[in-house]
Amino acid sequence: MQINRNFDNLVPNYLFAEVASRTNKYMKEHPDKKVIKLGIGDVTLPLAPVVIEAMKKGAEDLAHKDTFKGYPDYEGYAFLREAISNYYAGFGVTVDANEIFVSDGAKSDCGNIGDIFGKDNVVLVTDPVYPVYVDSNIMAGRKIVYANSNRENNFAALPDENVKADIIYLCSPNNPTGSAYTADELKQWVDYAIKNDAIILYDAAYEAFITEDLPRSIFAIEGARKCAIEMCSLSKTAGFTGTRCGYTIIPRELERDGHNIYNTWYRRQATKFNGVSWPVQCAAAAVFSEEGQKQIKENISYYQDNAKIISSAMDELGIYYTGGKNSPYIWLKCPNDMGSWEFFDLLLNEANVVGTPGEGFGKNGAGYFRLTSFGDRENTIEAVERIKKLLSK
Amino acid sequence: MQINRNFDNLVPNYLFAEVASRTNKYMKEHPDKKVIKLGIGDVTLPLAPVVIEAMKKGAEDLAHKDTFKGYPDYEGYAFLREAISNYYAGFGVTVDANEIFVSDGAKSDCGNIGDIFGKDNVVLVTDPVYPVYVDSNIMAGRKIVYANSNRENNFAALPDENVKADIIYLCSPNNPTGSAYTADELKQWVDYAIKNDAIILYDAAYEAFITEDLPRSIFAIEGARKCAIEMCSLSKTAGFTGTRCGYTIIPRELERDGHNIYNTWYRRQATKFNGVSWPVQCAAAAVFSEEGQKQIKENISYYQDNAKIISSAMDELGIYYTGGKNSPYIWLKCPNDMGSWEFFDLLLNEANVVGTPGEGFGKNGAGYFRLTSFGDRENTIEAVERIKKLLSK
Repeated sequence: MQINRNFDNLVPNYLFAEVASRTNKYMKEHPDKKVIKLGIGDVTLPLAPVVIEAMKKGAEDLAHKDTFKGYPDYEGYAFLREAISNYYAGFGVTVDANEIFVSDGAKSDCGNIGDIFGKDNVVLVTDPVYPVYVDSNIMAGRKIVYANSNRENNFAALPDENVKADIIYLCSPNNPTGSAYTADELKQWVDYAIKNDAIILYDAAYEAFITEDLPRSIFAIEGARKCAIEMCSLSKTAGFTGTRCGYTIIPRELERDGHNIYNTWYRRQATKFNGVSWPVQCAAAAVFSEEGQKQIKENISYYQDNAKIISSAMDELGIYYTGGKNSPYIWLKCPNDMGSWEFFDLLLNEANVVGTPGEGFGKNGAGYFRLTSFGDRENTIEAVERIKKLLSK
Repeated sequence: MQINRNFDNLVPNYLFAEVASRTNKYMKEHPDKKVIKLGIGDVTLPLAPVVIEAMKKGAEDLAHKDTFKGYPDYEGYAFLREAISNYYAGFGVTVDANEIFVSDGAKSDCGNIGDIFGKDNVVLVTDPVYPVYVDSNIMAGRKIVYANSNRENNFAALPDENVKADIIYLCSPNNPTGSAYTADELKQWVDYAIKNDAIILYDAAYEAFITEDLPRSIFAIEGARKCAIEMCSLSKTAGFTGTRCGYTIIPRELERDGHNIYNTWYRRQATKFNGVSWPVQCAAAAVFSEEGQKQIKENISYYQDNAKIISSAMDELGIYYTGGKNSPYIWLKCPNDMGSWEFFDLLLNEANVVGTPGEGFGKNGAGYFRLTSFGDRENTIEAVERIKKLLSK
């Protein structure tokens, strides 16, 4: 009996555990202080009323023999896939309902998609990076190369013709840096992927936060259907972090190495997955209804206003940052060339505000720091006032 | 870019597709005939009222800021894991809540658990077999050996000391054969696993159908904590096929190849999974409440009575079968040495009843046939009458 020895190559990721540990220690030692957490990327606003209603109706369906639902389709119910297809059409991107797989979240799909690729492919990620892209490929024994996102490229790495990669993870708007690619920049990645016979795994989880004229989908880019898979999630779009629903789009014509990618992923899902809960699919479809879109946009606006409050403070303080505009994240340079954990401790101890040290996301995160706009309004305002007071000293 | 070439070794499984195709053709050609389907292993009764109520309450929680739930724990909420632990205590098996991982179903866990094992392990499955065990390991490039379940062992294969295996899939009560291992038989497997440094992956999805004095869990067997992982599901226990919830139990002390198995699986799940939907976990916990247990047992009894109706007919007809007693499946020998597809066509054309040809589950299924008790009462009675009439001719 052998364990998968690739697990030995995983670096224990203590980032959020260490954040929690230092925070809890401080709170225990200072029970009188009000600590405000702008660290974790989890939403706080409740689901939209029309979504709750659909979820309850879905539950009620399961209570009666004539509306009861057994095993769902592996790829999701057609009514939900059609709703997603229409949503894409709404911003001018053509995606057929039959190219969509509904799942329990983009994290599962990002992690599991590796099953269909050989282990000798070289994986490219941008650094700083969402750790799932790295860890799931280390588990599979793949070589990983890093494209540097840094101040020179506004934390939005571009392809390097001298680097050869087969699988490319892109996340735009980016977690953790909040940067968002322009159409021209994405076109460079698409051209690079086609030239290298590579596949782009495009994580669009934050697309609903885009406010400027930027692509909401990789499929807005010419050529992407020949080289890209898109993963998206309702977690941030509609507050589904605890409800669990996402989707993956694979163009029907996408082929590599003599295999049709849609069919290969279908076979993987049919073998290792049994579809998404009926009331959750009902709730997800409600997100894409006219009323649902109106309601979720109110929540997104709330978070966007929080982001504006944080980024305005950075502007006032003259601190360099990315994100905030098309993203719920503000990625800032720690003042006075502080290290990211040093700045973490300073903020915690002197302003009682918790953020996330950038170096937890990769080497280019050293000296940077992530704040999120998912907190509530009053706390965000208070946190920002405390930060301004501390750093204006 | 290379595709995972192991996918080339998958045998296209046309079983249910072929069943559907022949059935639909017949129905199209004979629109006046009432075809009764006892083929697919999907439930038909609605969820228990207390489960629906909990699911709706869970949905309502998501509608309010103070009860809203974001990302769940990777391993499931403690209240659900404790409820499962108490359920096991109810039949005398000690499983700590901290040894349980909640998931979206046993199929996901059965498929994904392979991630933590090396690819050079030899996998043993009993034949006939639930195809997920085979296909997920072919995808991973593992060698598979087959233990024959057949009439000599009442379709419950036992270990062969001359065969070396590292990972052993057991399903009891069995899908598709309905056979259930005795404690003595399971002890043989446990001893074999310990001797071979192997791990048993025990699929207990049908444990709630056990009526005789047989083990409901592998952990009822001495030594199992040193060699077994148990997967279970609420799909058949509580009609959750469309609701999606299951769980996996890993003893904390289970180690192989210098790795703690619980920790390794935790790392896998934390990387590629984001937990189960809040309303679904609420619904699942309700299954294990006192009222929930009472209500789900009514549904199980209904299916068990269907099983009795089918198996009594087999007794009357003098047809050899396994299952029916501790299982929703009746696995029968096709009369007159017919092939399983031949019998399928006969039943469809002459009795308008649909079942599943045994050879779709492996070579030992040739000449056998699966009927399920998940249909409704009147249809089950009518189907059985038609079969009796046909075969008594």
